Amino acid sequence: MFEPSLYGGIEAGGTKFVCAVAAGPENIAGEARFGTQAPEDTLQQASNFFLPYVQSKQIRRIGLGSFGPVDLEPGSPTYGYITSTPKVEWQNTDIAGILRERLGLPVVMDTDVNAAALGEHIWGASRGVDPSLYLTVGTGIGGGLVKDGRPYHGLLSPEMGHLRIPHNRTADPFPGACPYHGDCLEGLAAGPAIEKRMGRRGETLAADDPFWGLEAEYLAHGLTNCILTLSPGIVILGGGVMRNMILLQNIRMKVQESLNGYVKHGRIMERIEEYIVPPMLGERSGVLGAIALAMAEDGELR
Amino acid sequence: MFEPSLYGGIEAGGTKFVCAVAAGPENIAGEARFGTQAPEDTLQQASNFFLPYVQSKQIRRIGLGSFGPVDLEPGSPTYGYITSTPKVEWQNTDIAGILRERLGLPVVMDTDVNAAALGEHIWGASRGVDPSLYLTVGTGIGGGLVKDGRPYHGLLSPEMGHLRIPHNRTADPFPGACPYHGDCLEGLAAGPAIEKRMGRRGETLAADDPFWGLEAEYLAHGLTNCILTLSPGIVILGGGVMRNMILLQNIRMKVQESLNGYVKHGRIMERIEEYIVPPMLGERSGVLGAIALAMAEDGELR
Repeated sequence: MFEPSLYGGIEAGGTKFVCAVAAGPENIAGEARFGTQAPEDTLQQASNFFLPYVQSKQIRRIGLGSFGPVDLEPGSPTYGYITSTPKVEWQNTDIAGILRERLGLPVVMDTDVNAAALGEHIWGASRGVDPSLYLTVGTGIGGGLVKDGRPYHGLLSPEMGHLRIPHNRTADPFPGACPYHGDCLEGLAAGPAIEKRMGRRGETLAADDPFWGLEAEYLAHGLTNCILTLSPGIVILGGGVMRNMILLQNIRMKVQESLNGYVKHGRIMERIEEYIVPPMLGERSGVLGAIALAMAEDGELR
Repeated sequence: MFEPSLYGGIEAGGTKFVCAVAAGPENIAGEARFGTQAPEDTLQQASNFFLPYVQSKQIRRIGLGSFGPVDLEPGSPTYGYITSTPKVEWQNTDIAGILRERLGLPVVMDTDVNAAALGEHIWGASRGVDPSLYLTVGTGIGGGLVKDGRPYHGLLSPEMGHLRIPHNRTADPFPGACPYHGDCLEGLAAGPAIEKRMGRRGETLAADDPFWGLEAEYLAHGLTNCILTLSPGIVILGGGVMRNMILLQNIRMKVQESLNGYVKHGRIMERIEEYIVPPMLGERSGVLGAIALAMAEDGELR
């Protein structure tokens, strides 16, 4: 007989699920990725991946970082549910409850971006820096903050993707693509906004296409607002759109210009390349963050 | 012989100082207000107010909420200094150190807005709500957040006054008055911006002057951005400009419009008049917050 020493992690994304059994990035026993379909099918697929590890008693607990909006209010009757998502099939899905029941293990849940922020904070680019911000720019834009070693929560979870920023209408008559706010940050700068504006997907544009100057301007405005409110010690920029390194460099420059010396700290004024950085865990920030959520619950991260 | 049971509180503002000896809002032994002059004179005046209480051993500790920027980085050689303020005489003033030396008492320091946020959280409008945000709109715009019962700090203190927001150039060709950022929130909506744009001070405009619609629009954008990043459980709007109750009502409406049902919580969607509220301690949020800073240090607020 031995005690289970591993954890199950799930990054439940709107387009794909990543599952892993691990106790850190150096210690991954198994991993699976699959597209997000209807909840019944996808949660079955996730359960099937974990079940052999569960049956051989290798897993202590499941960590779940989920797309949302999710209900994380303790005591709420729909705690652990995905609530009013635009993905109709997933509306009002008790994702944490279903997994708990299928696997017979406790499930610790947070948002996908909070999980990624925690993963990078424990093992990645923001290791040891507190508070640290993780922002993802892909199909949507979202942000998670780790403060005092834990994911930050308020009345609800922050929704940094929907910040109101100056819209450069002279250079960019595009009205914005957010169904709620039109030209909020996500409406101007997420993947679907790029595709709608340019008539083709962002990844098919040259890395130095002039469009990226506009994209950098909007993302720099959004980042500036996050820095002015949350004052993170480091900012990680992840997500598909951020794979363009010229864009990253351009954002750094524009954030410095935008703050214009007002936030006086060497990391911002002189070493911005250490302040705004890519993720270190690559495609695994989210799933390793989910593992970290589960380990933290057991006091394994102290 | 008796133990000192009171605390000294100082709200060090850019235009006035408020000093009090107290142990809460119901228990104020003495109070003084005076205009902010050169540091030497003003700190002498503050010391003179406290000295009788110090000599009779009534004060245990001094709390200080200061205008800034201030250096609050533990271990910094200029910890407790007012640093790069536009008020030239006050640049590089060791305000905490001078008071400590003059009064022979320990000094606990934070920003003026963090102190006000804490004062309202302990005794005022945001009592028991966590996280709670205090935003002041006056000569400048600044915000403080109380999270887990303590003022929030990051790499530095947040600088919410300088958020980048959409500038309504059609209705408002005014270029903005912030020396750092032009048309940031403070540059568009603080007292000096109103005066420069309208040719007269805001308090001389009728409470229903059409200008206030524009002011509400900008403040609602700023507030929306604070809500999307910090997710406060309540927002207190203080400062001279906010004495106009029609403006407050207009801001509530525009924040709801701006979030457009995206942040799904009853406090925002149905009970916004309980969510965006005026301060309850009135002109004393700051100085009582400074008292709270000192009491917290002694474990007197648990």
